[in-house]
Amino acid sequence: MNDRTLRHKVAIVGVGETQYFKHGQSPDPEFKLALKAILAACASAGISPHAIDGFASYSDDRNDAVRLATALGIPELRHSSMQWGGGGGGTAAAVAHAAAAIAGGLADCVVVFRALAQGQFTRYGQGGMAFGYGSATPAISGEMAFPVPYGAISPAQRFAMKVRRFMEEHRVEQAALRAIALASYHHAQANPRALMHGRPLSEEQYDASRWIVEPFRLFDCCMENDGAAAIVLVSAERARDFPHPPAYLLGAAAGADYRHAASSHTAPNYATADFRTVARRLYEMARVEPSDVDVVQAYENFTGGVLLSLAEHGFFRPEEANDALTLENLSAPDGRLPLNTSGGHLAECYMHGMNLIIESVRQIWGQSSNQVEDVDVAMMIAGPMVTPVSSLILGSEATR
Amino acid sequence: MNDRTLRHKVAIVGVGETQYFKHGQSPDPEFKLALKAILAACASAGISPHAIDGFASYSDDRNDAVRLATALGIPELRHSSMQWGGGGGGTAAAVAHAAAAIAGGLADCVVVFRALAQGQFTRYGQGGMAFGYGSATPAISGEMAFPVPYGAISPAQRFAMKVRRFMEEHRVEQAALRAIALASYHHAQANPRALMHGRPLSEEQYDASRWIVEPFRLFDCCMENDGAAAIVLVSAERARDFPHPPAYLLGAAAGADYRHAASSHTAPNYATADFRTVARRLYEMARVEPSDVDVVQAYENFTGGVLLSLAEHGFFRPEEANDALTLENLSAPDGRLPLNTSGGHLAECYMHGMNLIIESVRQIWGQSSNQVEDVDVAMMIAGPMVTPVSSLILGSEATR
Repeated sequence: MNDRTLRHKVAIVGVGETQYFKHGQSPDPEFKLALKAILAACASAGISPHAIDGFASYSDDRNDAVRLATALGIPELRHSSMQWGGGGGGTAAAVAHAAAAIAGGLADCVVVFRALAQGQFTRYGQGGMAFGYGSATPAISGEMAFPVPYGAISPAQRFAMKVRRFMEEHRVEQAALRAIALASYHHAQANPRALMHGRPLSEEQYDASRWIVEPFRLFDCCMENDGAAAIVLVSAERARDFPHPPAYLLGAAAGADYRHAASSHTAPNYATADFRTVARRLYEMARVEPSDVDVVQAYENFTGGVLLSLAEHGFFRPEEANDALTLENLSAPDGRLPLNTSGGHLAECYMHGMNLIIESVRQIWGQSSNQVEDVDVAMMIAGPMVTPVSSLILGSEATR
Repeated sequence: MNDRTLRHKVAIVGVGETQYFKHGQSPDPEFKLALKAILAACASAGISPHAIDGFASYSDDRNDAVRLATALGIPELRHSSMQWGGGGGGTAAAVAHAAAAIAGGLADCVVVFRALAQGQFTRYGQGGMAFGYGSATPAISGEMAFPVPYGAISPAQRFAMKVRRFMEEHRVEQAALRAIALASYHHAQANPRALMHGRPLSEEQYDASRWIVEPFRLFDCCMENDGAAAIVLVSAERARDFPHPPAYLLGAAAGADYRHAASSHTAPNYATADFRTVARRLYEMARVEPSDVDVVQAYENFTGGVLLSLAEHGFFRPEEANDALTLENLSAPDGRLPLNTSGGHLAECYMHGMNLIIESVRQIWGQSSNQVEDVDVAMMIAGPMVTPVSSLILGSEATR
């Protein structure tokens, strides 16, 4: 056995979220949202926040580890890491970094979190900000220097081209994207935390909604929200001593394929979400196959990103997308591939993938509001097309 | 044996540096400096840059991993992590993160680097920039909101108060700081890479130099430079297959002690460089004691930081500082505690600690221009007072 693995080395033992808000509607500043989510995660794990000795985040989260440690009264901060690169492609990578730190003895109890008050800072969906590299650089720098002069400014514009090409090459119908949106709204109706709880979406409403950028209609695009979400990780040997059953990390992978100067230009593989090598390594570490996965949370910046993500993780061949992506197949509890069972970014909250990780944990715990039966293996896919991308697989006690 | 350790899991097998420049004198842009240092490190390791599959850095390095991977033609980027927090306190932490990623199977060959063209971007030594949180935040935010309104703006001003207090409490003489400066200049005279090569410093010159902020004279302060430095890390099991002998990571630790809102205010421990818990954990992981350390590279933002760093790493008790810190004791090859044997930040180059890690490796290799005899254990201490701080210990083949 290769000792260089994170499989079954670490487990998630607590999750916490704030109330989720439409952007601009949080009464709390972003830093307080972060603290609230972290305290909620500690309560879920049955630990004092003073037990935390590390923080990991991604996309240049503004709420830095030293300030959090100060506010929480943490006696000894031992680890603080940031996935390098902006956007939600780093969600699972941040978990991987936290896990590697624990497995390597750098920390004992690491919180991975995301606090995101788009109402208080820059809105990600708008053009002209530093999407792709977070807040550390001026608006039009790095890879954004390539598409912006040509008018491809907003994420919707840039991602639409790849998705359109994928759909053309593989004859994917708009109904496949619609099914992804409908599944999220369907699941949100059972989830009181979801912002779209009580606001179901029909095929007719979807079809009548306006184009944002073809092939994305309004309901193909994620929301913009305020809130925070956090998880608590400890080593696997301690993980059975907590109130909830351990959600073991089976595998995690991050990365980017060979690219030529900008993620918008990935010739000759134009229509990619960048998961091909990541998915291969993910399955290798987790030692599972796509058919072993009981439930998937796939990051929707746009439904098209989910389409490409699922194909690149091997859940169907591209030419099978129209058959695989139906509301029936994607709905919990009985669908063949239950997807985004909390409502995800379209209908629960756009919390940069952290709410998707929490939903994966709830599925392992058997506590989702759209619970799939006997979940042993849960996958979370982060930030398609926003390199480095990442994904992870969690496993129940039965996987040990 | 506790499996949760990085001891002997990873080794440094290559190092590379650009020519070092006074700030503003690099003919190359910072990104090109980064590439040059990385290529030099690959040449040192005898590998193609295409073998790299991860990057780690710190202090919000501007040269992001995806862009580097593109420029270097790396086929598969698997890891990209940033120590969270600005300043050079993260140098050893970045190495720890890279090591944890390799040990955890997230990557095989990770480059840790720093590129820093202070002539092309913000100068760290000046007031008004975001020192302490890197470039991700506006100038006066985070912990800087506390000292700046009181006029403590530049790093020299803020660090001077802690050092002054330490010197008062423990009766440390100015001559102790002077010895640290003289040792760096002394070593630089044998190192052709050093910017102060050929420019020796005498006691008289030191004593006649102007105060920057008491107790820091001009020669107590680091330089400001342009350049880049990089190291190549692989797993220990592969490390013997490279041209140089492995420099194994024996231990690494990072962190911050309990703090109250700002690193400038650490009551009741006012006079600290923040290494007390870090040093304890460092020695625990490395399984060595201060007396086992053959040579030390200690990050000089200011000589006073070195004073506190060495005391907090247990090389002497504070009240012994005047006896311990003499030019004779600190000089290679025969001093009791050979210090900053490349010339360090005062006299080689201020490369945010990466040149200090490289010098530690050279000492393990037996290739320093101020070689200490039979070096088996080399320590590097990063960024005193710039939390999270970090330090690491490297070991030769004899430590296995």
